[in-house]
Amino acid sequence: MTHDPLVVFTPSGKRGRFPVGTPILQAARQLGVDLDSVCGGRGICSKCQITPSYGDFPKHGITAEKGALSDWNAVEERYKSKRGLIDGRRLGCQAQVTGDIVVDVPPESQVHRQVVRKEAAVRDIAMAPATRLFYIEVDEPDMHTPTGDAERLARALAEQWEITGAHVAPSLLPDLQKALRKGDWKVTAALHLDHRGGTPTVLQVWPGLHEDGIHGLAIDLGSTTIAAHLCDLKTGAVLASSGVMNPQIRFGEDLMSRVSYAMMNPGGEKDMTDAVRNAINGLTESIATEAGIAPSTILETVFVCNPVMHHLLLGIDPVELGQAPFALATSESLTLGARDLELTVMNPRAQVYILPCIAGHVGADAAAVALSEEPGKRDDLSLVVDVGTNAEILLGNTSRMLACSSPTGPAFEGAQISSGQRAAPGAIERIEIDPVTKEPRFRVIGCDLWSDDPGFDEASKGSGITGICGSGIIEAVAEMRMAGLLDPSGLIGSAEATGTPRCIPEGRTFAYVVHDASADGGPKVTVTQGDIRAIQLAKSALYAGARLLMDEMGVDKVDRVVLAGAFGAHISPKHAMVLGMIPDVPLDQVTSAGNAAGTGARIALCNIDARREIEATVGAITKVETAIEPKFQEHFVNANAIPHATDSFADLRKVVPLPEVSFNAGGAPEGGRRRRRRA
Amino acid sequence: MTHDPLVVFTPSGKRGRFPVGTPILQAARQLGVDLDSVCGGRGICSKCQITPSYGDFPKHGITAEKGALSDWNAVEERYKSKRGLIDGRRLGCQAQVTGDIVVDVPPESQVHRQVVRKEAAVRDIAMAPATRLFYIEVDEPDMHTPTGDAERLARALAEQWEITGAHVAPSLLPDLQKALRKGDWKVTAALHLDHRGGTPTVLQVWPGLHEDGIHGLAIDLGSTTIAAHLCDLKTGAVLASSGVMNPQIRFGEDLMSRVSYAMMNPGGEKDMTDAVRNAINGLTESIATEAGIAPSTILETVFVCNPVMHHLLLGIDPVELGQAPFALATSESLTLGARDLELTVMNPRAQVYILPCIAGHVGADAAAVALSEEPGKRDDLSLVVDVGTNAEILLGNTSRMLACSSPTGPAFEGAQISSGQRAAPGAIERIEIDPVTKEPRFRVIGCDLWSDDPGFDEASKGSGITGICGSGIIEAVAEMRMAGLLDPSGLIGSAEATGTPRCIPEGRTFAYVVHDASADGGPKVTVTQGDIRAIQLAKSALYAGARLLMDEMGVDKVDRVVLAGAFGAHISPKHAMVLGMIPDVPLDQVTSAGNAAGTGARIALCNIDARREIEATVGAITKVETAIEPKFQEHFVNANAIPHATDSFADLRKVVPLPEVSFNAGGAPEGGRRRRRRA
Repeated sequence: MTHDPLVVFTPSGKRGRFPVGTPILQAARQLGVDLDSVCGGRGICSKCQITPSYGDFPKHGITAEKGALSDWNAVEERYKSKRGLIDGRRLGCQAQVTGDIVVDVPPESQVHRQVVRKEAAVRDIAMAPATRLFYIEVDEPDMHTPTGDAERLARALAEQWEITGAHVAPSLLPDLQKALRKGDWKVTAALHLDHRGGTPTVLQVWPGLHEDGIHGLAIDLGSTTIAAHLCDLKTGAVLASSGVMNPQIRFGEDLMSRVSYAMMNPGGEKDMTDAVRNAINGLTESIATEAGIAPSTILETVFVCNPVMHHLLLGIDPVELGQAPFALATSESLTLGARDLELTVMNPRAQVYILPCIAGHVGADAAAVALSEEPGKRDDLSLVVDVGTNAEILLGNTSRMLACSSPTGPAFEGAQISSGQRAAPGAIERIEIDPVTKEPRFRVIGCDLWSDDPGFDEASKGSGITGICGSGIIEAVAEMRMAGLLDPSGLIGSAEATGTPRCIPEGRTFAYVVHDASADGGPKVTVTQGDIRAIQLAKSALYAGARLLMDEMGVDKVDRVVLAGAFGAHISPKHAMVLGMIPDVPLDQVTSAGNAAGTGARIALCNIDARREIEATVGAITKVETAIEPKFQEHFVNANAIPHATDSFADLRKVVPLPEVSFNAGGAPEGGRRRRRRA
Repeated sequence: MTHDPLVVFTPSGKRGRFPVGTPILQAARQLGVDLDSVCGGRGICSKCQITPSYGDFPKHGITAEKGALSDWNAVEERYKSKRGLIDGRRLGCQAQVTGDIVVDVPPESQVHRQVVRKEAAVRDIAMAPATRLFYIEVDEPDMHTPTGDAERLARALAEQWEITGAHVAPSLLPDLQKALRKGDWKVTAALHLDHRGGTPTVLQVWPGLHEDGIHGLAIDLGSTTIAAHLCDLKTGAVLASSGVMNPQIRFGEDLMSRVSYAMMNPGGEKDMTDAVRNAINGLTESIATEAGIAPSTILETVFVCNPVMHHLLLGIDPVELGQAPFALATSESLTLGARDLELTVMNPRAQVYILPCIAGHVGADAAAVALSEEPGKRDDLSLVVDVGTNAEILLGNTSRMLACSSPTGPAFEGAQISSGQRAAPGAIERIEIDPVTKEPRFRVIGCDLWSDDPGFDEASKGSGITGICGSGIIEAVAEMRMAGLLDPSGLIGSAEATGTPRCIPEGRTFAYVVHDASADGGPKVTVTQGDIRAIQLAKSALYAGARLLMDEMGVDKVDRVVLAGAFGAHISPKHAMVLGMIPDVPLDQVTSAGNAAGTGARIALCNIDARREIEATVGAITKVETAIEPKFQEHFVNANAIPHATDSFADLRKVVPLPEVSFNAGGAPEGGRRRRRRA
């Protein structure tokens, strides 16, 4: 028996057999291998360059002999002579399979579309999706008792699946007629079940048995990034995850500046709405391509987002959300058509579910966190904090649930910080300061080594050291406090007072130098007194919001803290507590929930009961409005110090003894003795 | 024992006792008295004006004393000073019962008003439209208990109008936000009530009290013309009527040629769908302009049409309707959005209702005729015939209703007739032939004079004499028979046999010259033997369909005949019966229903209960398929003669004695004596 030649792609390891003469580009596409092509295989764009490997590959169970690809051809020769081609490379659209072969896809031939990538959390979700497939046998038309195809299909659903009252989406009627005849009156119908008891709607039909599945998108629509998970609606499997920057950034970095844009430019919300819808269309296209599925099989989409993004997605002016009484145009969950949101890439009849908003500042993303983390199903008291530009805070247990939003500002995301930057390659994300030498060591995103590890300079050369991101600045401030470089009020000491030349004057205050490559024309990364103040404001706001909920609940401590959000996943609990971002709890009771909002979106996508559940939960949540609560200001002011010692904090102090230093505005020591931190 | 005061409403005579202090509007509502109110009793809209009457009313058994209503109040005074109020009038929402009183509801305060309009049939339609206006006062947002604008609006509808579960159309959300604030939380909402119990949907809102009304279109979508009535959805008044040619005519004159076009040109239905939708958009624009209203106030549209037009409107390939088993893609009524049909001129959220189809050949137009003519509400047996390219036939009474379609072909519309033309200026529409001289006199469309009236030549100069239309050819054939120019088999006699030189040879048969201006280069209008045969085929098909239903019903006569359709309105009952188009009934029992389908569309537009009624009626109709019924052929063949004398036809023969002539194929007399027809 003769097999077709085997083709193995590296680095992905994807493999398959293809008839002699199959172009490598075509084989790559069929296997879902990430091999670029812009010209569609015309030998023009050279994006599909590949490197064939010959020899014995025991790891892949294959021996590739010279001649396993078709000969170098005229198209390749012309391309090489005109634009150059590295020796050993071939054009994937020209080279055809003639025998077993290993093909390497070099990095520059891979499609690098994922600007941001939020991996889906591993999570078991009970599958009960709103849109499901039903195979049915429909009665043939009978001219003695005339009925329509649609009515006979509905009857089949009732008789064969006990689903009564289904109707066919009007735009499907033309296709339904043809599918029924092509399938000889046997079809697979994708039926959307409304979780509020509305009419079941047939969204799509396929002749015969449709085995390729249907898909759904869970989209976490953030102010900065739009992250999507593409799920199989039968198994719940995440087939692809992808993200793009939110293009609304050009109208304003943070939410309030986008609200301002709408306020200053009447009708400006339309520009922002168009931008975000276009981005979602592009993301839908790319994620479908990545997963190797047809976009028309995407029949459901779930959105979670904050209220401003929620309104801008729906085309609603967000201005009301920027001023008291922070009135939402609509707060309950919405089920609508893809067409209503001009989402034109997915199936035109796809159903969109948007989780309910909790309040004008506490959005569907917070609802999704509640759905994912389920604090309401635990007896102990959980504080769930989704840290972003606004912190959204939930406090509750089986008895009661409270929610508020706290205006932390963008400092936690590295914005408004002198050396701050987004979490991207080159950003310092972890930092330690030796309490004796006051010398820092750090890690940057994109490099696995610490800065004092051998080989760090070489390893970090690609990304460089470009600044400090949100988790880095939190660690830096906490470490500075622990190393005695900061006093409890947040003042940075002078070089003389702290004993390290890294504390340099900066105007009338001091700054700590984390990294200085300015002699070589490189960057200088410092933490200034202004940075400390910005972090203090942000952490005070976060803490004050949590305290306000605790007041409302009538408690002065919580049992556990969950840090949600992509950023929350990178915060070190110890540093967060040293800083006083969160109330004091035993360190092992601080957990990270990763992208809980995205997980909540996936749950709502895969389980119709979860929609009813979160709607009931949100309806029962007590909303606390920080903006009008006098106690918020009080808590905010009181939370300014680092740390605000409390009794329960004593535990942490045993592990992390804080130096009892105090500086005056000039940075000189005011007394007190130093403690040594254990190495 | 003391009674509550007695309130008697005129003109309805409805009466009841109400506690002192009951507003008259409330009393009217409880009694089901037709008293208008838009603002819900807030003294703003003035729609509930009433006239109290005092004195002795023996007829009503009541004496009303001055002071039987509460005093004229500040709300009424303010309204009167600002907007005026006829002396003696009160506002029903302000005036409260204090003693026995007679209250007259003037016509302009009645919701259900007589509808009179020249083009649309005069018809009293009880108003209960699916889309209605509701004035509501919405709670302002409260940041302590945050809810969305949409949710507070729904709550206001529930609390103030007892309409629960309303939702706001997604695309309205951006406008809702602004309207609420502009109207200071008082708005008028246009709410669509689903007659099948689906969610009520808010389609539009206006700040404050919206008094300009909302509108609906009743569209009779015919193969040849598209006719629309623009109605006020509050009063039912027809504000404008307009029509355009169906542009699909360029794809095929009649239905079967359009089906053929779709069959021969895959995807060709798309062209036809685009054409008809564009035409409806243009018609919407022009009819709104004619009535002086904004197209965006058109919030409802009802369509009636035959199955092929129904499918093409919906974008469905009509090919299945051209072949057994004549399967409809969907048969039940449809409620969908204007957007679903790309109707872009009316309000984008307008709701479209399409009446149910009865069978693959018997469409929503026949359903509309049933709704308008209501044969099912009469004890006597009605035969309702909608004459067009296909005749749609209903037979029934209170016990049972049957329906079929009969393939008459387009001869009745003047097509496939040698001098035939559409009913347009210049077409001969009436004709009489003198039984002695065999000379014709006729009238043409566009001229009120008969051809032998003085001044006819001058008066008809504008339109000329261009041909003969459907009603004209029917009269011509019947008159030729009555004048002895035709024998019962339909053969035209020769000049020699008939004694008139107007019978001229035409190939191997003869033709009758109605008008000859060929000497002056003008047209020559003749009725040929081929024309006679075409009319015989058409009338036989129509008659055979009616007979088939009578067989199914088990009767050999009907009590009355209703001729529906624009063409039906022009057929002379006498000539139709001479020709044998319809079964014999007393002449005074043949009536014309005019555009019954269009009237049915208006009823469905103005009354939600009528939608439920016609859906139930259509569900109960027994469909008879002429194409597969062997008896149809038998009836068809038997109906070929003119006339097919029956016993009941004897009555007619007394009025219209038919000559007992017979011609052979060469047109010579075969014997029998002539009778004289009375002039």
